[in-house]
Amino acid sequence: MASANIDPQSDDSKICVVMVGLPARGKSLIAGKGEWEDITFKVIWRLTATAMRYLGWVGIPARVFNVGSYRRFNTPQPAATFFDPHNEEGERMRRAAAEAAMSDMLQWFNAGKGVVAILDATNSTQERRQWIYEKCHEADIEALFVESICDDEDLIMTNIKEVKTTSPDYKGQDPEEAALDFRNRIRNYEKAYETIGDNEKHYTYVKLINVGSTVIINQIKDYLSSRLVYYIQNLHIKPRSIWLSRHGESEFNLSGAIGGDSNISERGEAYARALPELMRKSGIPENTKIVIWTSTLKRTIQSARHLKAETGYEKLEWKALDELDSGVCDGLTYEQIAEKYPEDFAARDEDKYNYRYRGGESYRDVVIRLEPIIMELERSENVIIVTHQAVLRCIYAYFMNVPQEQSPWMEVPLHTLIKLTPRAYGTEEQRFKANIPAVSTWRGKGTSAKHQEFPAKVDSKEESKEESK
Amino acid sequence: MASANIDPQSDDSKICVVMVGLPARGKSLIAGKGEWEDITFKVIWRLTATAMRYLGWVGIPARVFNVGSYRRFNTPQPAATFFDPHNEEGERMRRAAAEAAMSDMLQWFNAGKGVVAILDATNSTQERRQWIYEKCHEADIEALFVESICDDEDLIMTNIKEVKTTSPDYKGQDPEEAALDFRNRIRNYEKAYETIGDNEKHYTYVKLINVGSTVIINQIKDYLSSRLVYYIQNLHIKPRSIWLSRHGESEFNLSGAIGGDSNISERGEAYARALPELMRKSGIPENTKIVIWTSTLKRTIQSARHLKAETGYEKLEWKALDELDSGVCDGLTYEQIAEKYPEDFAARDEDKYNYRYRGGESYRDVVIRLEPIIMELERSENVIIVTHQAVLRCIYAYFMNVPQEQSPWMEVPLHTLIKLTPRAYGTEEQRFKANIPAVSTWRGKGTSAKHQEFPAKVDSKEESKEESK
Repeated sequence: MASANIDPQSDDSKICVVMVGLPARGKSLIAGKGEWEDITFKVIWRLTATAMRYLGWVGIPARVFNVGSYRRFNTPQPAATFFDPHNEEGERMRRAAAEAAMSDMLQWFNAGKGVVAILDATNSTQERRQWIYEKCHEADIEALFVESICDDEDLIMTNIKEVKTTSPDYKGQDPEEAALDFRNRIRNYEKAYETIGDNEKHYTYVKLINVGSTVIINQIKDYLSSRLVYYIQNLHIKPRSIWLSRHGESEFNLSGAIGGDSNISERGEAYARALPELMRKSGIPENTKIVIWTSTLKRTIQSARHLKAETGYEKLEWKALDELDSGVCDGLTYEQIAEKYPEDFAARDEDKYNYRYRGGESYRDVVIRLEPIIMELERSENVIIVTHQAVLRCIYAYFMNVPQEQSPWMEVPLHTLIKLTPRAYGTEEQRFKANIPAVSTWRGKGTSAKHQEFPAKVDSKEESKEESK
Repeated sequence: MASANIDPQSDDSKICVVMVGLPARGKSLIAGKGEWEDITFKVIWRLTATAMRYLGWVGIPARVFNVGSYRRFNTPQPAATFFDPHNEEGERMRRAAAEAAMSDMLQWFNAGKGVVAILDATNSTQERRQWIYEKCHEADIEALFVESICDDEDLIMTNIKEVKTTSPDYKGQDPEEAALDFRNRIRNYEKAYETIGDNEKHYTYVKLINVGSTVIINQIKDYLSSRLVYYIQNLHIKPRSIWLSRHGESEFNLSGAIGGDSNISERGEAYARALPELMRKSGIPENTKIVIWTSTLKRTIQSARHLKAETGYEKLEWKALDELDSGVCDGLTYEQIAEKYPEDFAARDEDKYNYRYRGGESYRDVVIRLEPIIMELERSENVIIVTHQAVLRCIYAYFMNVPQEQSPWMEVPLHTLIKLTPRAYGTEEQRFKANIPAVSTWRGKGTSAKHQEFPAKVDSKEESKEESK
């Protein structure tokens, strides 16, 4: 089998995801957090970013080909007239940029490692789409058009009003006027825009209407496209956070044993009691509904017990969130494993992501079974997940774009709440430590020590970092 | 957690799937195999039948409320004028039937065990749909409208021509004329039909256009609806077969050990060699492309090796098809298990579907991980699956509607090819025995014998049965 996690993937599938939306107007307006676009563009943006993360996470080689960056290489700061369809020079250069992106994409596929390319441009005319379709068809690549449309006037205006306050362009202006002015800009672009039409019914496409409240799916053929489309149709852009926590310290943690289904320790129970306050401290917007997810193992259910009781949040138990199955090593300490299965122990250190415990699982296996969890997380809004070290590493890796080979070695300490908040340009992370001691369950490569410190010790009670784009 | 397999399911979700399609004309024409309907009706029919099987398989309490059967109770054989919208008496009685079905459905939900109801009627007017929506809304039930539309004239005519030959109504008529006559009947019904319109955008709905080549999904909110919709959008009605085979006899089979990753025995290898011929014998329509699916374990890959080599069929390996994980019992014989873990052995006999091996899986767990396989199987056409006893039992149970408590005890002998062919009124089964001896791995309740015969021994080389509706 190939190295892809989506289980299985036909050897020869090559997909070109073609983004379709209003012209990427207002790029110069993007201020800091990139909140200053219209809603259609926002959807395309989020889709491109998360689809790339998702594909990386499941191990499918993917790459974005951004036509704008080819264009900018030649015309770093185009005047507004550049985008005028009657400007012949502008048209010629935009065409050249599209051709350069296409040519690089084909080369990348031909080199043999590419599976999914994302062609990121506005592709807002039927002519341009036909050209892409034919180019892909010739090269035996499936073109999957993904269009974002918004015709809900309330949604458009709400979005404009939400973001306009931060734009330098409209500083000092009357907010209502600024919003109307921006709305008019969008209308101008709409004139030149051609939505995917009835004469394009032979294309494979997905239309996301009003941020996915309606989804139209046309002519999906292969397995990977169907997975991608299912993923796409679950995305939303509502503001939300996802909280991650390991269970409180367990009896097995104390003895250094892995796996099992032990109870939480006294200190673990203290963490369970502290969790509701830790959640509040992390910041929960007013009137926010949060859902608690745990695994089916006792230590996570016990750890979420007080949170559930105090808040009345809805709670779900997922078997898919159970800890990585360590097979024959279940219940052993690392020392015992190193002694009893020295070759396995070394093999695991060599390639921790792919190493599968005898009769158990690898990190790769866990990622496969977590896929429905990720799908459901994308559909959901505010969720706190109380689960296990290996599982948390995999979920964290998805949101923070951590490479496969690195994720099994990450430190996710006990008694620490992680808050992830998706932003326009990445996911923001905050960590909140409960002031309750716990053993460290982190183990360095090559050692079998029971309780080790992670090299880069986290000192501050709260630290913040952001996944770079 | 509830007993549902879809992991997890919110305790309070209640869904009413409301079928929407052209009036169920031509019911009296349904001849034997039920092939004598138009294409829209065919899709609705298949959807209702398979959705019920799927829900039963994943353990979600579901029931069909067929309005027609309430109506037939009062008017066993209505005249054609009964369906005339201007016939007041007919209209009154149809309304009464809808009300009776609705009332029974609400009672069923109120009794507390129902999760998904399917309201099977034409529901072809906006007025009727609004009434259903309001009734459901009052009772806190999510209405999910599922509409089937076909506007592809070629598709409609091809379907009519395919089936018209079997209809007694058109016996002796010119085929072309009969087809046109039937097409005209459909057109008459189309006049009174109202598709889900722009003023119904607040409903949760799915529109399947031209047998799902285009799918429109609107306002899906909860988890279970999203799973159902994903399932629905994967269905097709193309004729196809699915072949099931266990791997050839393995070395572990010989010694009576379970689990492991052993090679196939000499007789297993003989079966692998015989498989291509057995496939041919089972009947493969001309120009049929078949895809081979195996697990990632050696015995299934070895068993499919010659089939792959001789036919050149595409092959996929799925980890989700690996055998039920028997945890600490992996590699033991039933005798050894009974001796070493007597309580577990008894507990497993008591409730084999739910019993989870220590550190391993239950049949219920296997069904959860097979869900993506079932989704992909519904999307696919002709597939041969070479896999393991417990996994095959689960897949077989899905297609043949076998109750959960029964499925773990079914006999699926070695060296036997099972061919399943979906028909209008159920799934047709044929079994083809290779004339190659193998041990029996079937074990009766309460015994720990190594090689046992299934009570109802299969004598004939080929037998045929059909899952009753």
